[in-house]
This record gives sequence, structure tokens and C-alpha cells, in this order.
Amino acid sequence: MALTEQCMIKLQSISTATINAVLFKRGLRNTYIRGVHLINPSAKRMIGPAFTLRYIPAREDLDHLEAFEHLGHPQRAAVEGCPAGAVFVIDAREDATAPSAGCILLTRLMKRGCAGVVTDGGFRDTPAIATLNFPAYHSRPAAPTSLVRHHAVDMNVPIGCGGVPVFPSDIIVGDAEGVVVIPRAISPGVVAEAYEQAQFEAFVQKKVEDGQSVLGLYPPSAATREAYERWRAGAPN
Amino acid sequence: MALTEQCMIKLQSISTATINAVLFKRGLRNTYIRGVHLINPSAKRMIGPAFTLRYIPAREDLDHLEAFEHLGHPQRAAVEGCPAGAVFVIDAREDATAPSAGCILLTRLMKRGCAGVVTDGGFRDTPAIATLNFPAYHSRPAAPTSLVRHHAVDMNVPIGCGGVPVFPSDIIVGDAEGVVVIPRAISPGVVAEAYEQAQFEAFVQKKVEDGQSVLGLYPPSAATREAYERWRAGAPN
Amino acid sequence: MALTEQCMIKLQSISTATINAVLFKRGLRNTYIRGVHLINPSAKRMIGPAFTLRYIPAREDLDHLEAFEHLGHPQRAAVEGCPAGAVFVIDAREDATAPSAGCILLTRLMKRGCAGVVTDGGFRDTPAIATLNFPAYHSRPAAPTSLVRHHAVDMNVPIGCGGVPVFPSDIIVGDAEGVVVIPRAISPGVVAEAYEQAQFEAFVQKKVEDGQSVLGLYPPSAATREAYERWRAGAPN
Amino acid sequence: MALTEQCMIKLQSISTATINAVLFKRGLRNTYIRGVHLINPSAKRMIGPAFTLRYIPAREDLDHLEAFEHLGHPQRAAVEGCPAGAVFVIDAREDATAPSAGCILLTRLMKRGCAGVVTDGGFRDTPAIATLNFPAYHSRPAAPTSLVRHHAVDMNVPIGCGGVPVFPSDIIVGDAEGVVVIPRAISPGVVAEAYEQAQFEAFVQKKVEDGQSVLGLYPPSAATREAYERWRAGAPN
Amino acid sequence: MALTEQCMIKLQSISTATINAVLFKRGLRNTYIRGVHLINPSAKRMIGPAFTLRYIPAREDLDHLEAFEHLGHPQRAAVEGCPAGAVFVIDAREDATAPSAGCILLTRLMKRGCAGVVTDGGFRDTPAIATLNFPAYHSRPAAPTSLVRHHAVDMNVPIGCGGVPVFPSDIIVGDAEGVVVIPRAISPGVVAEAYEQAQFEAFVQKKVEDGQSVLGLYPPSAATREAYERWRAGAPN
Amino acid sequence: MALTEQCMIKLQSISTATINAVLFKRGLRNTYIRGVHLINPSAKRMIGPAFTLRYIPAREDLDHLEAFEHLGHPQRAAVEGCPAGAVFVIDAREDATAPSAGCILLTRLMKRGCAGVVTDGGFRDTPAIATLNFPAYHSRPAAPTSLVRHHAVDMNVPIGCGGVPVFPSDIIVGDAEGVVVIPRAISPGVVAEAYEQAQFEAFVQKKVEDGQSVLGLYPPSAATREAYERWRAGAPN
Repeated sequence: MALTEQCMIKLQSISTATINAVLFKRGLRNTYIRGVHLINPSAKRMIGPAFTLRYIPAREDLDHLEAFEHLGHPQRAAVEGCPAGAVFVIDAREDATAPSAGCILLTRLMKRGCAGVVTDGGFRDTPAIATLNFPAYHSRPAAPTSLVRHHAVDMNVPIGCGGVPVFPSDIIVGDAEGVVVIPRAISPGVVAEAYEQAQFEAFVQKKVEDGQSVLGLYPPSAATREAYERWRAGAPN
Repeated sequence: MALTEQCMIKLQSISTATINAVLFKRGLRNTYIRGVHLINPSAKRMIGPAFTLRYIPAREDLDHLEAFEHLGHPQRAAVEGCPAGAVFVIDAREDATAPSAGCILLTRLMKRGCAGVVTDGGFRDTPAIATLNFPAYHSRPAAPTSLVRHHAVDMNVPIGCGGVPVFPSDIIVGDAEGVVVIPRAISPGVVAEAYEQAQFEAFVQKKVEDGQSVLGLYPPSAATREAYERWRAGAPN
Repeated sequence: MALTEQCMIKLQSISTATINAVLFKRGLRNTYIRGVHLINPSAKRMIGPAFTLRYIPAREDLDHLEAFEHLGHPQRAAVEGCPAGAVFVIDAREDATAPSAGCILLTRLMKRGCAGVVTDGGFRDTPAIATLNFPAYHSRPAAPTSLVRHHAVDMNVPIGCGGVPVFPSDIIVGDAEGVVVIPRAISPGVVAEAYEQAQFEAFVQKKVEDGQSVLGLYPPSAATREAYERWRAGAPN
Repeated sequence: MALTEQCMIKLQSISTATINAVLFKRGLRNTYIRGVHLINPSAKRMIGPAFTLRYIPAREDLDHLEAFEHLGHPQRAAVEGCPAGAVFVIDAREDATAPSAGCILLTRLMKRGCAGVVTDGGFRDTPAIATLNFPAYHSRPAAPTSLVRHHAVDMNVPIGCGGVPVFPSDIIVGDAEGVVVIPRAISPGVVAEAYEQAQFEAFVQKKVEDGQSVLGLYPPSAATREAYERWRAGAPN
Repeated sequence: MALTEQCMIKLQSISTATINAVLFKRGLRNTYIRGVHLINPSAKRMIGPAFTLRYIPAREDLDHLEAFEHLGHPQRAAVEGCPAGAVFVIDAREDATAPSAGCILLTRLMKRGCAGVVTDGGFRDTPAIATLNFPAYHSRPAAPTSLVRHHAVDMNVPIGCGGVPVFPSDIIVGDAEGVVVIPRAISPGVVAEAYEQAQFEAFVQKKVEDGQSVLGLYPPSAATREAYERWRAGAPN
Repeated sequence: MALTEQCMIKLQSISTATINAVLFKRGLRNTYIRGVHLINPSAKRMIGPAFTLRYIPAREDLDHLEAFEHLGHPQRAAVEGCPAGAVFVIDAREDATAPSAGCILLTRLMKRGCAGVVTDGGFRDTPAIATLNFPAYHSRPAAPTSLVRHHAVDMNVPIGCGGVPVFPSDIIVGDAEGVVVIPRAISPGVVAEAYEQAQFEAFVQKKVEDGQSVLGLYPPSAATREAYERWRAGAPN
């Protein structure tokens, strides 16, 4: 299930916006998780296959503090079950009135080697999370106890997160702008194409910085394509 | 899993608001499905155990019109699998930008003997649904094709519907005001207590119509309680 | 504090939209309560001075069912203190996740001779309220117990309702479209002017029904004004 | 620019939901105007080419009551310029805090032979509009003066209405469920296909009412297709 | 009404999330002000009893610029009346379309020795406020004149702020995550318990950083409790 | 169409909040673009006349990637047509589910000498935009392809942006708090008055920092006015 090393290297330098544009070319219009942002901008980039946790609304007779004492509690089991290298993705129904998790669980995910965490709800302890070298995406701080609102129900099933479908093992990539979901089956092709697209956008950006008009450049005329090919041939592969 | 006949009879006359108040007395504050209303007010009252269907956001490469041709498609399978007497409850993530179902599927549920249907999204064909003798609750009409937004993923799992947790077999009751969810295990006691509460509220309503002040009446003083007991003793049990 | 009989008679036939337009001419842009509608369209028209009740968010240690047993509980005291002829206006912070009141309290207000009730939240027991001959405006049904969300704090103070300032004794008028608030001090002049405006609009409506263009009619040219004056002279005053 | 008579006849009986499904088959996912409903359910069906009016936010120094006195005021000019048979479509930026129009202007449109009116904002005078035999769609009543919020800027340009692009002359169809926009160029083909689709849905609905399972029926198996063709052959064309 | 010095010292180091969790254990589920954040992260921590100001919607004939010239204007009077050490809490109905206050008034509160300010609306002059050593929480910048939207009506009454009930003298604590409200009567006990809870969370965090699983640790097994007690005994009290 | 040099110099030091207050004195209540913030706080201040671009919702058959290849595509034409010194203002219907533009187009605007850019939607490539010395205001990052949601339809027409009317050549000023729109015709007078108002506010701020009460100071008593005049006389003009 791991990404190839080459894919991982390329994904270090491709923006999520560019990946998203390539997914759009393949007919996928809804691949960018809405409403989330990165808490800790100095953390490493987030890349990895999705491991999911699903919440439903809480019920007072089930969701009291003692519930966590059960060793099989799905939230705790998911944190301890998420594989190294994976991105932990939480379906919190875009509800940030109570936290999806806090600093202790995120530290545990980091220590277990996970690649990052995304919820379409919110986290508590955000000032502490901001200091972790572990990419964490959420919508806004959520300090009340999670049990007020969330009941963990199952893990590693298909979920929605921020309006986007996430299937276990889909490739999740997060940068300073946001988080994109690449369907597993097409991820090698998408990464390859996005890498080429990123080279082209770098070429265009440079030309624009040099004063060129966007007409005939972006999208490219035949002459621009040719100029790009020459530039690309001299660029590192 | 069926409700007793006595429960069914009592539930015909208790308002969802009264049931909800009884659930609140037991510490349950979140049992009323938010944002839904009845499309067809002349339909019979909706009472039955929950049978659930879960949607996640659609993905264009999975959710095209041919998808429905697969006989095991979860939406179609759920419609044909929902037991007679059950209420079909859909988790559509409160998204009514595409329909959860339309008149054909609702007619099929009706013909199969189901007790009603609730989605926290919307239905298409609402003018036709309004003429069915089959209670249907939703948020607002949703005419676009369901595949634009919804991917049916599994059935009869715990879900959220309108912000409320719904576990398979929970008792769902709907009247002209809305829909309440009674956790399965406590449903006999809740129905019994709500029936008594409904008698008391009927007594209070009559007294108020006769011109009595609410002070000392609602909530009742000792004298009011006594008067009620006498009135109740003369009322049908 | 009562309105003159002539004002009351005129207000029976002026639409809230017309009153609102007259208030706009006097520089008042925010006089129409947003987000509310009439539950019982067959009820009489709602006209009367405002009597207010203010809610703040509930707190679990204060807002339990026993709280109502205190005879001075502000919600119950307000219901028993609202004068005959007055409109009961509730500031529920536009929160309809729990009811502002239910059928019993509204029946009591009706029996005490109040002119109607408005909340910017919601009521419970709406199917029963729909049968009362007592105008009730709210945003949407709200079946959970009010104590889940609302703590009654004081009465007959200035409040906001649906984004509009309401001072005690302001004149509240409700029709099938909605509810307008007329500042007390200017209400006689506003009613007089709105009555004239309503006559003019009736004249224009008739002309348009007869096939006339709106150009030169609405707003009126000098010739139209003259024609209107003649028409108005023949109409009942 | 007129629709053929045959198109008009077919459109009398096809639901907007079915038209929308046919547009989806052609790759158009966003053709249903969101957030609007029919004020007057007894009005005739709304069918006609779009004539548009565009509002931007109001500015107090431009939008005072005298502004309407200018004969070329775009709102008044548009009402008098909308051709008979056309549907008047207003871009109000989904803002219903002030009206897009009121009963007088809608009556004028009706008298001029227009086919109906849609705004993604709201109308004032809705109780009166509800009695017109003229289909009017909006989001919610809006009683304040339109000048508080809307500045009419131009007419018959491409607009957005309820999140949907509307180009002048696009075909607008409204039924009791809502309003669909058919791009002009493809409208004959879409109507023809939707009519066939409606026949098939009627066949399916009848089979389901007779007790047939949806599996193999909807979508149809080869046997179902054959049965449908036989049924269709016997049905009026 | 002042907090004990020991309470003040402890509150310097306890996160609002931890305080909130302790309030939840006592049945209080709604104590975290929603939708607000800290403008000036380098300011000192905000701790103090609440002093409140209540706004209702503005009315043009009351809320013109001259209104502020009245020396008893409630907004100005409240600013000059808020005691040293208190937190100034504003009920702005979560409306940030006009400011609750600006840099001048906040500077005055700072100079008068107040402990901080919270509104559930917005402030103007946020770039300047960001440089004050005075904690200020709001939802978003709000540059228009406050009189466009807010009418100051009374001070030091119970209010709602960000969906939370705030009674005068309740203890308000703000950190980089947000603001929690501790009911006055229970504040000493809550602070004491929260301080202990913070020690335990620090112990857990350290263990997780050392690589320990959360199972058996958080919540703690008997062995973990014992280890914690030993650790706690060696920690500063 | 250019601003005078003196205006430009004054606008460098007047806050948008102060300009807005002066516009309010002239009866303009809606001049502050709602929901936008500055992406790159270290960029120079944004001042210039508006050049507008209008989007409507996208339609799949018109808005595919090839559309940009047409040299007259309105988005590209607008970027190449915006005059040096102007502020590029986009009406994106407050929809940030797809970008209004990205880093390449913003770099081109910067290179062409434009003064800045505002959209009421969102941009893609925000991490790169944050490094440009070119003020850019939006609501939130928007990584999907713009064609998913936006169809560029015309340029330099009156538009709405963040709820505010923007006419071509209106003066747009942006600082770290937000963006204000000054109607062209009154801009010299507004700038002059705002500059004086800013001096007065600086005086008040200083007095408050020195410990003076706001009573009699803000708004000023006669004595304060006199003190201000003396202070102002000694201040640079």
C-alpha cells in the first residue's frame, strides 16, 4: 500500500492546487477538503495513504467519560491502529463545537510514525499542537470535551471529510494551502502528470516574472510549448 | 424487534414534543432530527424501528448512471432490504443539493410495507410524494440527480441524521411537527411515561382553556396534582 | 398606552409591507422581523403594543425542570404579566433548537386577551398551535425542551427580535407576510401615512390590472397624481 | 426565439426533476435554481425563454425613492421590456433582506403576457401574489423597500440565479418542485429526450405501484426494456 | 469579588480546554465562547470576573453620531465603569457587521486596569489592537461605525456571549485557544480540580512523548494512576 | 482618472476604519467589503481606482480547459486590460469553492503595475501569493480549478463585491484590517475629511494612553475641541 519512493519525492514539491487541477482534467471536481487549514505551518509536508475514523453525533447515555476506559473504544483503537506512514482522516460531520482529538492523541499519532492528521471538525489544545512537528489540519479550535458531540463508531471505512469522499488508502497530500485526496487507483498517473504540470507552471511563473503577457503563455501557444520543451530539457528530471 | 401492540397504540396519540420532553428527563438532550418536515401531512403517523442507509459524498468515476445497474448497489439493496414496519432513515450529511431518493423508490418502500422515510437531505418528485399515503420527511426539494452528490456506502449501521445519532432498531416516531428518535433499549419505558405525560398535558391544556393561570398548574402544585389524579382516574387508561 | 380605535381600524387593512415602506421614508431601514412566519394563517390579524421577554443561553445547573416550579420564574411570570391587547415578543437569539414556548403557554396568552406572540426562535406543539385563533409567529418547529437552550432572564426590557430592535410599547403588526415594528412615538403618524399609501397602492394595482404601464404610474406622474386624487376623493375615508 | 408548439405541449407534462436528469446525462450538473419555491401553487406551469434583470448592492446616494421616477430606471424598464411569453429572471445575489419586486410589478408582468418570474431573493406582497394566476418563485417574503439592498443595473445580460448560470433566451421551466434552466442551443433535444424519459418513469412508477421490485426495473434489465417498449408502443405519442 | 491569589496563580498555567473538561464533569456542556479568537497573541493571559455590556440592534433615530455625546451613553459609561481586574464581556448578538468597539475604547479599558475584553461580534482598528498588551477576543474585523448595527442598552446584566450564558462576576479565562466561562459560585473548586487535571495531562503528555501507548494511560489504568501519584508527589505543588 | 498625489499621500496613513466612519457621516452605510482579509501583510498598502471583473456560475459545456485558449477570454483579457495603478476587483458571488485566480495571474497584475487585487471568493496558490509584494484580499484558499464554479462574463461594469456596490473608478483602499470603497465623485472630499478625522483620533488615542477618560474626550467637549485645535496647529499638515 506504500507509495513508491519516486512518488514520495515528487509529492514533496507539487502544490495541492496543481494536483487538484490534474484531477479536474480527469473529471474529478470534488477532491479538495473544504474548510480546513494547517495549524502548524512549520511542520513537514503531509503525504500518505488515508486511515479513517468515523464519528456520529454523541448520545449522553453512551458518551460519558467512562466510555474511554473501554480498551476497544474506537477512537483510542484507531489511534493505536493507524499504520506508520498513514494520514489519519476523521469524519466529524464538519462539526467543530467539540474536538475531534487533542494534543495527547496527536502526539501519540506522531510518535507512532503517522504522516499527519485531518479532521473536518476541530482540535483542542491548538496552542500546543502548533508546536508539534506533525501536520494537523482542522477547521477551528474546539475546546469542549469531544463526548459532548462525537461518538466514535468505526474505523477504516469510506467516509466524507470536508465534503470530499475518502476511501481507506486514498493518497492524502497536504501543504500550506490545504488538503487534496487522490483516489488510490489513479495516484501514480496523477502524481506523474502533476509533476510535469508543476514544471510547466514554474516555467510560466518565471516568464511572467520576466514581464511576459499571459496571452499565448498560459495556456501556451505552439511557440510557448516549444520554448517550454527546450527549458524543460535543461531542467532536472 | 417489533414494538408491542400497546406501544404502537399509545404512540398513535403522543406528540413527538412530549416524547422528547420525557427523553430530556432521562438526560437525552439531542433526540429530535433537526431541519426536516413532513411532505405529505395527510399521511398516517410514522412509527417503527430504524433501518438506515449511509451516504458519503459522490465521486465522478464511481457515481455515474451505470452504477445503479449493479444489482448490489447499496441504495437499491437497502430499499429492497428494509423490513416491513421499519422506518427508512438516510444519512445524507444534511446535503439537499441532490436528492436522497425520489417518488419511485418511496413508492417501493410504501408497497413493501415500510412505515415511512426520513432523510436529512431532500427528495425529488415532491409534488408526487405529497400525494402518497406514506410519511416522508426531508429538508427541501432536491431535483438534481442523486449521483451528483451522494454515494451510497452501507446500510443498517449507526448514522447521524439531522444531527441526531440513529442506531439500527431505534424507535422512530414522526408527527406533523417532526421526528424523534427513541433509543431502542429504553423505548418501552419512555412510551409509557410519555403517555402519562400526554394525559397530564391534556388536563393542563383543558384547564388553561377554561381560564386557569399557569401558576400552580404547570408545573403542578400539590393541589393540582391531586385534581389531576382525580381527572385521570376518570379518563380511559 | 393603547392605540386609538381609528388606528386599530386602519391597521386591519394595511399590509406590513406598506407600513415598512413608510418607515423607510422616515429613515428606518430595519423594522421587519427577519426569519419568522405565521403558524396559523386563519387567525385574526396581530396588532398591539409590545411586551417583551428576554432569553439568554441556558446553564444546566440553573435550567432543570424544577426551575419552573419557582412561582417567580420569568417565563411564567411574563406570560401571566403580559397585558390584554399586547403582543408578546420573545428574544430567543434566533435559536430554534429548543422551543421558546408551547401550546399551553400560548393558549394562556390567548385566554388572557393578548393580541399575539412572536419569537425569533421556534415553538413546540405547532400542529396544535395551528388550530388556535391566536396569531403566532416563529422561525421553525422546535420540539426539544426549552431548558436545553433558553434561560428566561427578564421581561419588558428593550430586546432584539429577528435582528430588529423592540422597545416595550412599540407597536407590533403582523399579517400573512410577516411582522413589522413601529416605534411607539411615531406610530400615529406612520399609521396615517401608511393608510394613505395603501389607498394609493390599491389605485395603482387596479390601474395595472386594467392594463396600464407602470411608467408614469408607479411612481406617479403629475397626471397620475391628479387621477389618483379624484379616485381617492370618491373612496371611503 | 419561441419554442415550437410541440415543445411547449411536451413541457406541460414533464417534471423539472426529469428534465434535470436528462441535462445531467449531458454533463450539466448545475441547472436547478437553488433555494426557490413557488408562491402560488394553483398558477399555470411556467415555461418560456429567460429575460434577465441584474441587481447589485444598493448605495444610499443612488438608491432613494426618487430614483424610480427616472423613466429609464432599469427595474421599471425591464418590466416594460420583457417580451410576452418570456420568464423574467432576477439575479438578487440570493439576498432576500429586501424585495426584488412586489405585487404591482408582478401583476404588470402578468398583464403583459409574461410566462412567470423567478428571483433568488424574495418578493413583498406575497399574500396578494399567492392569488395571482402567474407563477412566481422566490426564496422567502421580503417586505422592506427594495432600495435598501438592491440597485438595478442592467437587463438581458448573462446572470447567476440561485447558483445557476442563466443566459438570455435559455429555456426556463418551473413546476411545483422548482425551476430548471435548459441552455437554449440544446433545448429541443433535451425536451425530446426528457419526454421519453418521463414515459419510462411513468411505466416504472406503475410497475412499482403494482408491487414489482426496483431491481431489474429501475434501471431496467433487457426484459424490462422490452416490456417498456411494448407498453410505450400502446401509449399515446 | 476578587479571585484568591492562589487561584490567579493556578489559572496562569491551566489551559482553557482543561478547565472546560472539568466543567463538563460537573454537567456543564456549554461554557466555551464560540466563534472568537485572540487578536494579540503576545498579550498577557486574560483572567478576571465578568463585567457585561448588552447591545440590541440599532435604530436610526436613536443611533446617530450625536448619541455618544450624551455622557450617560451606556457604551461609554460601561467602559468607564468596568472595575480594574474585570473582563469586559459584550453581547453583540454574534453580529460583526459593525464593531463592538475600537482601539480607543480598548486602550481606555487597558489603562483602567481591566483584564481583557471579549465580544461575540468584532472590533475595528484590529491592526492597532494587535499591538496592545491587552487581551482582546472577537470573531472578525468590523470596520463600519458601530451605530450602524448596535445600540448599547444596559450593563452588568446577564447576557449571552458566543452562545454561552455570562452572569456578572462569572470568572472569564482566555488563552491562545479561546475563552471559557466559569460560574462564579463553583469557581474555586473548578480551578483546584482543573489544576490537578492539568498535572495529570502533563504527565500523560510526557509519557506519550516517551513512546507509551494511550491504552491504559489515558484514561489511566490502576497502574498508571499509581505511577502518576508517584510522579505528582515529586512535582511542585 | 488618477488620484491627486496629495490624496495618495494622505491615503497612505488613514485607516480604512476611519474612512468608513467618514462615509457613514455622509449616509453611506455599506462601503466595507465583507468577509475578505489580506493574504500578504508585508505588502504595500492598496490604493487605486477600481477595475472590475464579473463572474457568473460556470456551465460545463462552456467552461472547460480549452476555454482559456481563446485570446479574448474575459478573465485573461481583464488581467491584460487592467490599467497600471488600478485595483482589480472581482465579483465571485462570495463563492470560494473554486479560485478567482492564482499566483500566475496575480504576478502578471503586479508586473503590469496594478495596485492590488480583491475578490469576494478565494485564490489558489496562497502560500506563493503570501510572498508577493502585491496586496491581495480574499476570503479563503480555493484550490480547485476556477472553471468548476466561475464563468468570466464581462469587465469594468458595476458589480457587487462582498456585499458592497463597486462601480468602475471608485477608489479602493485596503489596509491590514480590510477594504473600503469610496464612490468616485466624493472621494476628494472624503479623503480630506478622513485625514482630519485621523488626526483627531491620533490625538484622542494619545490622551487615552496618557490616562484620560473617554468622557468629554470622545466625542469631544468644547474644551477638548479647543485642546485638539492647539495640538493640531502644532502637528504637520
